[in-house]
Amino acid sequence: MPALQNDTLIRALFRQPTAYTPVWLMRQAGRYLPEYNETRRRAGSFLALCKTPSLAAEVTLQPLERFPLDAAILFSDILTIPDAMGLGLYFEEGEGPRFERPLRDETSIANLAAPDPSKSLRYVTDAISEVRRTLAGKVPLIGFSGSPYTLACYMVEGQASDDWHKVKLMLHQHPGLLHRLLETNTRAVATLLNAQIEAGVNVVMIFDTWGGSLSAAAFREFSLEYIQRVLSQLKRGSGAARVPVIVFTKGGAPWLERIAATGCDCVGLDWSVDLGDARRRIGAGAALQGNLDPAVLLASPEVVRREVQKALESFGKGAGHVFNLGHGVPQFTPPENVAALVAAVRELSPKFH
Amino acid sequence: MPALQNDTLIRALFRQPTAYTPVWLMRQAGRYLPEYNETRRRAGSFLALCKTPSLAAEVTLQPLERFPLDAAILFSDILTIPDAMGLGLYFEEGEGPRFERPLRDETSIANLAAPDPSKSLRYVTDAISEVRRTLAGKVPLIGFSGSPYTLACYMVEGQASDDWHKVKLMLHQHPGLLHRLLETNTRAVATLLNAQIEAGVNVVMIFDTWGGSLSAAAFREFSLEYIQRVLSQLKRGSGAARVPVIVFTKGGAPWLERIAATGCDCVGLDWSVDLGDARRRIGAGAALQGNLDPAVLLASPEVVRREVQKALESFGKGAGHVFNLGHGVPQFTPPENVAALVAAVRELSPKFH
Repeated sequence: MPALQNDTLIRALFRQPTAYTPVWLMRQAGRYLPEYNETRRRAGSFLALCKTPSLAAEVTLQPLERFPLDAAILFSDILTIPDAMGLGLYFEEGEGPRFERPLRDETSIANLAAPDPSKSLRYVTDAISEVRRTLAGKVPLIGFSGSPYTLACYMVEGQASDDWHKVKLMLHQHPGLLHRLLETNTRAVATLLNAQIEAGVNVVMIFDTWGGSLSAAAFREFSLEYIQRVLSQLKRGSGAARVPVIVFTKGGAPWLERIAATGCDCVGLDWSVDLGDARRRIGAGAALQGNLDPAVLLASPEVVRREVQKALESFGKGAGHVFNLGHGVPQFTPPENVAALVAAVRELSPKFH
Repeated sequence: MPALQNDTLIRALFRQPTAYTPVWLMRQAGRYLPEYNETRRRAGSFLALCKTPSLAAEVTLQPLERFPLDAAILFSDILTIPDAMGLGLYFEEGEGPRFERPLRDETSIANLAAPDPSKSLRYVTDAISEVRRTLAGKVPLIGFSGSPYTLACYMVEGQASDDWHKVKLMLHQHPGLLHRLLETNTRAVATLLNAQIEAGVNVVMIFDTWGGSLSAAAFREFSLEYIQRVLSQLKRGSGAARVPVIVFTKGGAPWLERIAATGCDCVGLDWSVDLGDARRRIGAGAALQGNLDPAVLLASPEVVRREVQKALESFGKGAGHVFNLGHGVPQFTPPENVAALVAAVRELSPKFH
């Protein structure tokens, strides 16, 4: 592996001093970029794009051609795991993801097995190898997975939901069944993240997109517990080669202390919490990643710059902040606003270090 | 006004000792009750139901016929205010509320005036009078309004939204315009709540349903500030006749201390926060209302009872807890589960007092 030419992200994740605040954006490769839409057209579908390593690598690298970002994040989808488990992932145009065979009974959950990433998810690690060849150590590459509970949400409901009533009914009525599913998902997530680490990602991130829909007690039992188990199974390495881990629970602001206590290196924040408040609550427990409201990217470059300044001030001086949004880049973001965001972080952040 | 035969709710809101924990449920009158659906059919539409005092009074009282609840809440809709402002509220079957004339420019916002409740919202106070006649002091009647920001969300977007990008674009790009709208909404909300108090409600509640979609800083500036102004304009009365105020921000768990500091009597909680944690954070600052995940009502009566017990334990011993859900009763709730909830609170709560 070539040494990283820009290790600002890694240093910030370990709360080591940096010259400026590193920045990358959730969904930095995506529909707001015309070149992404062009590659997706060539792929034929979103899923074909995810499953074709050369094209996934291409879109992974696109935002880095435009913006001086401090990291690439592998272009993929959290639902590749349940797809590899045989649930039949598909996308309807204009709708979210769907499963042909959602899990509704004991037999289908009992029969579920964690996929072998070297077989059914080979396209993920192949894309990582290809990205790394092109990146050649320019910036770190981030690998990721959904959390066991977030995957279970889609696997039980069969699609996104406003209220997640089906999976919550299982949680309350058949908790043992949900625990069994979460154990399988935990093995699958840990195995995939370890395969990503072996293929050469420099950072891994766990997206707990729907853990925040749970009550505090249910979050601890059904989401955080399994994130913790994933972390304990990761082959993170040690010393200078240790792979830092980011855990992001959308809606997790009430539980930041507990998320930090999992032993992750960095807690991802949505925009509902002030960076300064989060820093006071977590202390030296973990670095923080976030947390501009993505809606800011729909305003003018001047507004973007002003909000970047406010976020930097809220975190304050010192190490341990990775600049990001509180969720993904919106579809209708003008690319020049992303340029304004990245430029503002680069220009305004050095005086906080 | 007749003295209240059951003042358990009022006492709990003032954090005075009670024999048990009072209970009522957001949307306790609603589509899960066959008798509600029957009255709605007679009314012809949801909006006609809201605007016909005799029918609104009828559905307000229906859940009290079935369950020994400690309060009635006026059947109405938070969007009656913008409707009375001339925005043209309508409902499509199976869709949420819509406005014919959403606010998109300076002129429409400048021309907006707070409605006179004695004219265009007379049906609200008429329904209150009718409910009070029938209730005859049996339990308290709760009046309510949306928060200024929550009303603005619908008024600018024209309908509910996943991301509220239109109103957030106004917030970032034309904050002065949004402030102007919020000032008008504040006058409208305060005027309507004062009219409700004059008509005889015993408690008022402000529903800040979408304040939680904001960043921490934007919440303080665009939602909480105006809730605070509403509170300062309320004619709450004094002494034993003082009307307690509940403020509920869905998604407000990161900001409970600040919500309590508005001077409200009670903070409504969604299910993302443990009652015990919220109590420690707020201290003697306010009573707490909540906070079962409404999804619990879709499970069995045994599960409902177990979750009621957990919530009571989480709050712990002492005064200042009003039992409720963390949001409204779901449409497909079996009425026997509401019966189980209310019975469980009555049976299990005395030992916490």
